[in-house]
Amino acid sequence: MRTVKLTIAYDGTRLVGWQRQAEGDSVQGLIEAALAPIEGGPVTVHGAGRTDAGVHALGQVASVALTCRHDAATLTRAMNAQLPDDVRVLSTEEAAPEFHARFSAKSKTYRYLICNEAVISPFDRAFAWHVPERLDLDAMRQAARALTGTHDFAAFRSAGSDTRDSVRIVHRSELLLSSEPTLLRRSGTRPLLVYEVCGNGFLRHMVRTIVGTIVEVGRSWRNPETIGALFRSLRREEAGATAPPHGLFLVGVDYD
Amino acid sequence: MRTVKLTIAYDGTRLVGWQRQAEGDSVQGLIEAALAPIEGGPVTVHGAGRTDAGVHALGQVASVALTCRHDAATLTRAMNAQLPDDVRVLSTEEAAPEFHARFSAKSKTYRYLICNEAVISPFDRAFAWHVPERLDLDAMRQAARALTGTHDFAAFRSAGSDTRDSVRIVHRSELLLSSEPTLLRRSGTRPLLVYEVCGNGFLRHMVRTIVGTIVEVGRSWRNPETIGALFRSLRREEAGATAPPHGLFLVGVDYD
Repeated sequence: MRTVKLTIAYDGTRLVGWQRQAEGDSVQGLIEAALAPIEGGPVTVHGAGRTDAGVHALGQVASVALTCRHDAATLTRAMNAQLPDDVRVLSTEEAAPEFHARFSAKSKTYRYLICNEAVISPFDRAFAWHVPERLDLDAMRQAARALTGTHDFAAFRSAGSDTRDSVRIVHRSELLLSSEPTLLRRSGTRPLLVYEVCGNGFLRHMVRTIVGTIVEVGRSWRNPETIGALFRSLRREEAGATAPPHGLFLVGVDYD
Repeated sequence: MRTVKLTIAYDGTRLVGWQRQAEGDSVQGLIEAALAPIEGGPVTVHGAGRTDAGVHALGQVASVALTCRHDAATLTRAMNAQLPDDVRVLSTEEAAPEFHARFSAKSKTYRYLICNEAVISPFDRAFAWHVPERLDLDAMRQAARALTGTHDFAAFRSAGSDTRDSVRIVHRSELLLSSEPTLLRRSGTRPLLVYEVCGNGFLRHMVRTIVGTIVEVGRSWRNPETIGALFRSLRREEAGATAPPHGLFLVGVDYD
C-alpha cells in the first residue's frame, strides 16, 4: 500500500458538500468513484475539511491508500478524466505511509467573500454573499481581529453540534478589502470584502457563524465587543446568523 | 419620450446571446421583458455589441426610448427585480435624445481569457478557454500587436457573413499575462493569458477568430507573419479556427 496526497479544487454550487451523502454528488463520493476503476476496487478518501453543501475549495487536501502503481501524474489525469468539471484534482503526491489529510493537518485557511454594492455582478453571484447595506468596516475589522487567539468557540458552532472540545486556536482573522481589479470585474467597481481566517481547526459552521456575526457588527446591530461576550457566554443563540455557504472557500491546508 | 442608457453585465453561459431569438433567453429579450411592465407597453432595446451565444459582458451598453417617468435608480432596481441573476443592469443614465448605443459608439473593448495550465480550475472553466499545450508567448505577443491599425479584417469574420465593409480600426491589440493572484485562484497558480483588443468596430466572430489564429501561432502551427498574409489574402479559410465563446467578454463601450 502507498499513501497518496491529493489537492483538490471544487465549485461547490451544485454539490452536497465534501462528505458522501445518501443523495447527490459529494466531492468525496466523486473522487472515490473516479479512483475505484483505477485502483480496481473500492477506496476510501479522507478529506482535511468536511466542507458543507455549497461551500467551495481552492485547495482541499485528501489522503487515500492505494495499491495501484500508476505514477502521480497519471493518477491526476485519470481522475480528472472521470470527474465532472466542477471538481478538479490539481495535484497528486506520494506521502508518508502515516499521512492523514485530517489528522496530520496543522492549520487550515478559509476565505469568505462579501459583495457590498447595490447590485451584485453576475460573475460574483455564485461566490460572494451580497450585503448591499452600508457597513461599518472599522467595526468589522475590530471584530475580526478579536477572534484571534485560543478561545472556546462553542457560540460559533452549529446548533446541535456535539463535538466535545470546542476550544480552537485562531492564528489569523482579518477583514481585508480586495485591492485587485479582477479580470471579471469592471474598473471602478467597489472591491469585495474578504474575510480570511487561519486556525488549527474549525467547528461545524464556525466560519459562517463568525462571518454572520461580523456582518451584524457592520450593520451596527451589535458592537465589536460582542465577540468577547460570546467567548464568555458560549451560547450559539447569542451569536449572529449563519452566513450563506456560497461565499466560503477552503483556501488551503498546511502540514509540517 | 426620453432616451435612457443602460450598462449591463451578464454571464453568457446559458444565454443565446444579445439578440432576441425564436428560442432561449437572450439579453435583449430579457431586458425588454423586464422593461415592458415598467413602461406599460412593448419596448425595443438597442445593444452596442451583438454578442454571440455563450459570450459574456462586463459592460454592455444599450439604449432605449421610454415614456415612463421613473428616475434612473428606480429603473435599475425595477429591472433587476425582474431579471434572472445572470443578467444585471449595473446603471441607468439619462442620455441625449439622439443617443444610440450602437451608432453612437466610438470604440469597444473585448477581453479573451486563456488558461494555459495542465488542469483548469473549476472557477475558470466557464470563463477561460483551456489550452494546456506549451505556447510560444513571444510569438503570440508579436501576432497580437500585428493586428493594430486600419486593416481589412475579411479573413477574420465568420464564413458566410455578408457585411459589405470589412475594414476596421484596431486601436490596441495585446496579449498580457494576468499578474493578479485572484481571490478564486490559489497562490502559485500560473497566470491566465489575457488578450485585449479595442477597436472602432468588430465583425461577426472577429475577436474569436483572432484568438484562434493567435493560439495557432502559439502552438507554432503558423508564424506571427501569418497576420500580415491574412490582411492580404482576406480568405477566412486561411485564418485559424474560431475560439470558443466562453472565454470572451465585452468589457466596455466608449462614447464621446
